[in-house]
Amino acid sequence: MQEISSKLIRDAAEQLGSLPGVGRKTALRLVLHLLKRSEDEVEQFSNSFIRLKKEIKNCKRCNNLSDSELCEICSNPRRSNGLICVVETVKDVLAVESTQQYFGSYHVLGGVISPMEGVGPNDLSIPLLLERCSQEQPAEIILALNSTMEGDTTNFYLYKKIGPLGIKTSTLARGLSFGDELEYADELTLGKSIVNRTLFEG
Amino acid sequence: MQEISSKLIRDAAEQLGSLPGVGRKTALRLVLHLLKRSEDEVEQFSNSFIRLKKEIKNCKRCNNLSDSELCEICSNPRRSNGLICVVETVKDVLAVESTQQYFGSYHVLGGVISPMEGVGPNDLSIPLLLERCSQEQPAEIILALNSTMEGDTTNFYLYKKIGPLGIKTSTLARGLSFGDELEYADELTLGKSIVNRTLFEG
Repeated sequence: MQEISSKLIRDAAEQLGSLPGVGRKTALRLVLHLLKRSEDEVEQFSNSFIRLKKEIKNCKRCNNLSDSELCEICSNPRRSNGLICVVETVKDVLAVESTQQYFGSYHVLGGVISPMEGVGPNDLSIPLLLERCSQEQPAEIILALNSTMEGDTTNFYLYKKIGPLGIKTSTLARGLSFGDELEYADELTLGKSIVNRTLFEG
Repeated sequence: MQEISSKLIRDAAEQLGSLPGVGRKTALRLVLHLLKRSEDEVEQFSNSFIRLKKEIKNCKRCNNLSDSELCEICSNPRRSNGLICVVETVKDVLAVESTQQYFGSYHVLGGVISPMEGVGPNDLSIPLLLERCSQEQPAEIILALNSTMEGDTTNFYLYKKIGPLGIKTSTLARGLSFGDELEYADELTLGKSIVNRTLFEG
């Protein structure tokens, strides 16, 4: 499709096209769709992003994104049960929540330690986590970081810092996914599955 | 993925998710991406849509979307050559422009006549087109509407109105697409291709 001559349309399409996974053609199509809406609706559309950016906070306890000082999970008294699940991002909170298997609180690091990219513990919410550990004295910290080099480094750093406080640390179980075939599994995963085999409960 | 607890994020994701082809999960992913940008960037993003909606005009000559009174095509003196290509939507202008085979002007109807949906000639820019025909006395009107029942109705209506003004009307050629195989072509298209066969020029 030809470049559209209207600068207004081009600007709006460029903004939408700057989002990941939205191509130029799709962006133009979406802009022409938006133009069919009323001025009020377009303002509502646009203002939702401005309001979001202006009003969103980080939960002062767990660093999760939140509308108020304390996020919904932290302010739920049924979920303050001495368990803290440490994750990299807000998306990971959503992923764990969707399992409906976890009822403790979270701690969102905002990334992982990466000397290559110049990210140290103080660039993340690690000081907040350590402070929390001293104050709350949780029974267990679950390290739920991704199994990358940086994730492992961060796990080790946290283990070294949290261990001396007398708090148990654990990591997520690694093994075959449901539906995985042994024949095609990588050795590392299959090895973990054998070492950490669980009692058959029928 | 679990519903996110932040209303601000949910609102923004709902707005993005209201665009055609953007699902709930994608919308959430895009919103979390937007949150990584600076406040200025988010304002620029949002304001582009508000500005677009507030400032966009319809070209007073051809009804195309335009930043100014007269669109870029209409204000280009090289393109006012007595040819008017009548299309349904702005997207059709872009499609014809992308062929780089047409150098006349356009007229954007804004739809087609549809008694079923209560769309009559006066709900479209047909009066403007007829006025334009009288004033400009173009040599030819190319009816480039889609070949739907409503498109055909509109073609016929325009033909009846424009014919008496002594202006030639034509429609787009229909036939096999390049790459189409005869075996799989529909009869209507193949029939048109035979009737309107063109001289082989080697």
